Amino acid sequence: MQLLLIHSDYIEFEAKRPTPVAEKVEEREKSGRLEEALCAFIAVEKMDEIDIPAAIAAGAKEIASVAEQVKAERIMLYPYAHLSSQLSAPKAAVEVLRGLEEALRQDREVARAPFGWYKAFRLSCKGHPLSELSRSIRIGEGASGAAPPGTAVGARPQEREEVVSEALKAEEKAVS
Amino acid sequence: MQLLLIHSDYIEFEAKRPTPVAEKVEEREKSGRLEEALCAFIAVEKMDEIDIPAAIAAGAKEIASVAEQVKAERIMLYPYAHLSSQLSAPKAAVEVLRGLEEALRQDREVARAPFGWYKAFRLSCKGHPLSELSRSIRIGEGASGAAPPGTAVGARPQEREEVVSEALKAEEKAVS
Ligand SMILES: [Mg+2]
Repeated sequence: MQLLLIHSDYIEFEAKRPTPVAEKVEEREKSGRLEEALCAFIAVEKMDEIDIPAAIAAGAKEIASVAEQVKAERIMLYPYAHLSSQLSAPKAAVEVLRGLEEALRQDREVARAPFGWYKAFRLSCKGHPLSELSRSIRIGEGASGAAPPGTAVGARPQEREEVVSEALKAEEKAVS
Repeated sequence: MQLLLIHSDYIEFEAKRPTPVAEKVEEREKSGRLEEALCAFIAVEKMDEIDIPAAIAAGAKEIASVAEQVKAERIMLYPYAHLSSQLSAPKAAVEVLRGLEEALRQDREVARAPFGWYKAFRLSCKGHPLSELSRSIRIGEGASGAAPPGTAVGARPQEREEVVSEALKAEEKAVS
């Protein structure tokens, strides 16, 4: 699972047209808007199909952790195929997205954009150092000894996060 | 080079804070806005450093081609590290971004967001079937026989574009 997490002033969407793999949704689910939300752009990947409950648990944990960090009370789950070249089957993607929604809404207001629709969206990214983060969730990598199962590995954000880390250190010095 | 191309009603940004690798820019370059623009989110990759002029030429060609397709007269170039796990050195990234700007502004109004700054942005994606496309530019793959140099390969968008293609076919039938 690839995640791009954007701390936003607002995120809103309207489903415009179904693709052949579109999730069936009610009319009221075709649009949505959240203010002061963490917007999680999500690509569910082939690897997540190995253990869907584990992928949901690891993804929800990571999203909740970043929401906590940036103090976002609302979460928008937004399917985003362009984050990966190894996408899961559409059915698995919908299962994971619904699972994330169910897991996260225990603690926070959650909205979810439908899978497989062409959507218009408007987004305002806040621009502070933690307002754009990416995460890779790699379920089952423990089997090959690469990382414990469900670990959020830093494959994608590594270089970016070094930059964040350096910037935060510089900021700490500046205020101390 | 990874490209995420979003046909937008508007895209605007403000550079908020430099990271340690921030491009030096004039005050007036720290914010920008374009309406009815193709916004190209760009990750310059290690592989692009093999032949920077070729990477610039191939990237500019691909961006111009999509701008043509969606009839966008303006282009926003927006560095986006989160699109790749194999980023180039910052110096190469800035060279490629400036090269793209120079190449593309022959034919169109072009704006560019500065590299290596934390930025706030606001974006409105139109939501038609071609309003979100991704492209992988793989310079030098010809050497290994995988693809001609400078080819925009479909590694990332393959599944997504099949969907687009099917949707467009359905649409053609509907209007014919
Ligand atoms: Mg308009």
